[in-house]
Amino acid sequence: MELSKRQEQIIEIVKTGGPITGEHIAEKLQLTRATLRPDLAILTMSGFLEARPRVGYYYSGKSKNKILSDQLRQYIVKDYMSPPVIVKEDMSIYDAICTIFLEDTGTLFITNDNNDFIGVCSRKDLLRASMIGEDIHTMPVGVNMSRMPNLTFLEEHELVIYAADQMIEKEIDSIPIVRKKENNKYQVVGRISKTTIAKLFVSLFKE
Amino acid sequence: MELSKRQEQIIEIVKTGGPITGEHIAEKLQLTRATLRPDLAILTMSGFLEARPRVGYYYSGKSKNKILSDQLRQYIVKDYMSPPVIVKEDMSIYDAICTIFLEDTGTLFITNDNNDFIGVCSRKDLLRASMIGEDIHTMPVGVNMSRMPNLTFLEEHELVIYAADQMIEKEIDSIPIVRKKENNKYQVVGRISKTTIAKLFVSLFKE
Repeated sequence: MELSKRQEQIIEIVKTGGPITGEHIAEKLQLTRATLRPDLAILTMSGFLEARPRVGYYYSGKSKNKILSDQLRQYIVKDYMSPPVIVKEDMSIYDAICTIFLEDTGTLFITNDNNDFIGVCSRKDLLRASMIGEDIHTMPVGVNMSRMPNLTFLEEHELVIYAADQMIEKEIDSIPIVRKKENNKYQVVGRISKTTIAKLFVSLFKE
Repeated sequence: MELSKRQEQIIEIVKTGGPITGEHIAEKLQLTRATLRPDLAILTMSGFLEARPRVGYYYSGKSKNKILSDQLRQYIVKDYMSPPVIVKEDMSIYDAICTIFLEDTGTLFITNDNNDFIGVCSRKDLLRASMIGEDIHTMPVGVNMSRMPNLTFLEEHELVIYAADQMIEKEIDSIPIVRKKENNKYQVVGRISKTTIAKLFVSLFKE
C-alpha cells in the first residue's frame, strides 16, 4: 500500500501531537477538514491511525510492516506442514542415508518400537558419522541422533511464523510437528522445514 | 488491511460491471455519491481499484495478496546475501566436509586456480561420496560437484523473491550470487539460502 505524501504528513502529526482532532490536523496542514476526510478515512481503515469520538485521532503504532505481520499471523502449522519421514532407531546409518536420498528430505525423525518420538537425525549428523569412519552398515541411527528431551518440536495449532523463528534461533533446518500420546510421549505427525517457509514466501508473492 | 462490507461490495460491482462511474456504483448501492467518496478513495489509493477520468472505476486485479506481493518486491539480493563459502576444486572431500562443519554452511562453491566459479557441492553430494565408500581423503571435491554451466546462479540486482522461487523450482538449498569477470567467467560474491528466506520472513513479522 502506497501512502501519499500528505498521508505520511498526517501520520507524522498524529504521531507527535496525538490524540488530535481532525480540525487541528487540518489547521496544521492549512487545509479544510473536508479535503482531509478521504485521507483520514484511509489511514484509519488501513490501521495506521485510530479514531475515538470526542478524543480525536491517535497513532495505532502500526507501521506498514505491522500490517504485513498481521497477515503473516494467519498461517497455522497444521495447514502447511508436510509428511514427516520417520525411521526406527535400529535402522543402520547406511540405510538412513539411503532414506534421505529416496525420500528427498533433509531430516529423519526417529521412533522406538512403540512409535514414540525419540530423536532427530540430520544430514549433518549422518555426514559426521560417515566421515569419522564408523561402520555405517552396522551402527544404528539411534546412536547418532539428537535425543529427546533436548529437541525443538511444535504442535499443529502453532504459527508457521513461530516455527520459522525457532529454526533460525536453534539453527536447525526443520521442526517435527507432534501430537501428545496417552503415555505422555509424542507421535510425529508432520514437519515444517525451511523449504516450507520458502514455498510460503513465494506463494505470498505469486498469488 | 481490513475492508468493510460495503467496500467488498464495491469491489464486486466494479469487478463484474467495470469500468463503471461512481454515480452508477452509488445507484446500485442506493447510496449517494458523497457517502461513497471515502470508500472509493480508500479502494483506489490502496490499489484495489483504478480510476480513469471520463471512464470510471475498474478492477485492478489486485487482491490483498497482490498488495503484499508489492511489498515483497522490494527486497534485493544484494542487501540480503551472506558471504559465500568458497573452496578450490583440488580440496579433498574430507577437507570439504570439515569446511561444511567449520563454516556451518550447507553448500560449498568451488573455484579453479583462477578464482573462476566452476561448481557447487552440497551436503548431499558429500554424503553420497562418503557413503559410496570413495577414499574421501584423496578424492578431490572437484570430481564430486555439480558443474557449470548446469548451475543456477543470480546477480546482485535481482529480487530475493526470485531467488526463493528458483530454490523451490530447482530443489536446491542455496544460490550463488555472482559477478561477471572480464574473461566471461563468474566470481562468486555471495549466497542466498533458504535460511536467508526464513530470516527475512521472520524479520517481516518482528519489525
